[in-house]
Amino acid sequence: MAKGLLTVVSGPSGSGKGTVLGRVFEKSEGFVYSISATTRAPRPGEVDGVQYHFKTKEEFESLISEDKVVEYTTYAGNYYGTLRPVVEKDLCEGKNVILEIEVDGAMQIKKKFPDAVLVLIVPPDYATLEARLRGRGTNTEEDILRRLERSREELKLFNNYDYLIINEDNRLDEAADKFIGIIESEKLSTVHNPDFYNKFYNN
Amino acid sequence: MAKGLLTVVSGPSGSGKGTVLGRVFEKSEGFVYSISATTRAPRPGEVDGVQYHFKTKEEFESLISEDKVVEYTTYAGNYYGTLRPVVEKDLCEGKNVILEIEVDGAMQIKKKFPDAVLVLIVPPDYATLEARLRGRGTNTEEDILRRLERSREELKLFNNYDYLIINEDNRLDEAADKFIGIIESEKLSTVHNPDFYNKFYNN
Repeated sequence: MAKGLLTVVSGPSGSGKGTVLGRVFEKSEGFVYSISATTRAPRPGEVDGVQYHFKTKEEFESLISEDKVVEYTTYAGNYYGTLRPVVEKDLCEGKNVILEIEVDGAMQIKKKFPDAVLVLIVPPDYATLEARLRGRGTNTEEDILRRLERSREELKLFNNYDYLIINEDNRLDEAADKFIGIIESEKLSTVHNPDFYNKFYNN
Repeated sequence: MAKGLLTVVSGPSGSGKGTVLGRVFEKSEGFVYSISATTRAPRPGEVDGVQYHFKTKEEFESLISEDKVVEYTTYAGNYYGTLRPVVEKDLCEGKNVILEIEVDGAMQIKKKFPDAVLVLIVPPDYATLEARLRGRGTNTEEDILRRLERSREELKLFNNYDYLIINEDNRLDEAADKFIGIIESEKLSTVHNPDFYNKFYNN
């Protein structure tokens, strides 16, 4: 079986990346989210290996030292990260693994998995980004400004990504189709078919 | 208007690349073949600027010295090549330019147009390649063996190309759709959208 493709998806708050990926999962089989590991305590109803792989701080740090954590960050005093054995198992089973992470993690992944495809989902323009953040109605003004400022830092790094998907209002299907098209096209890349010549002549 | 994409298409004799591209042109607008230049004499009915841009040997060599020939080869004592102004005009008009050339020319193009997308169209396996060449019924045994040997040299260089399209028997639509999908996906690449950040914040 052909190995799956590892895809990293990032996008500023307000890009709608989660909604786009939700539509991708509805439209196409063969994609899986990688389940992250965390040191935060499970909330009621959360199951180890479903929402997260729950680890103690000592376990997580030991995994880091063994190079089994391919990207991680800390938030509110807890580790959040992606475990190499989890990703590699899914890829070997032919699944296309999606990691929805921020730009720092994306750069860590690119170093450790040079064949990973990095996709940045963005709103069509700054005005739309601002309108979406304000439209939620749940964010404070300070929070909105902080997210807008952060988006600027993230988007500045856009050319560290391979692809840009512009997620326009009311065009969710189009954005999902673009994502699926990118993955299909990447599967035809020579980078992802290194054994072509040998297969062609030895079969 | 967004600039068009330059795509180089190669494939061994028997890959069916011409047929695939024919179907691409039927299915999708916005693609043009780049018209080559040659020093061979026009045949009856051939029109300058339609089948070829016809040049004298002196004109062609002068264009080479002016770096206006982006790839060329010689065949039966004549030059055949691609003129930079012809390609650049089409790209500026937003057309997706297709160059159907051999591997040497493809490598010349990649040096001069680093953003060009290189696609190799191949049969599914060696047995199919041989069957197709023999099935034509018009080639001598010597010619068949020569083409098979040549294909081996060409395919050895496959990872100088960006994409591989496997053109299976009786699946022409699938191969054409893959080609169109690759171009659509490449248009979303950050390489082909270098001005994204400035447009996002200045519009």
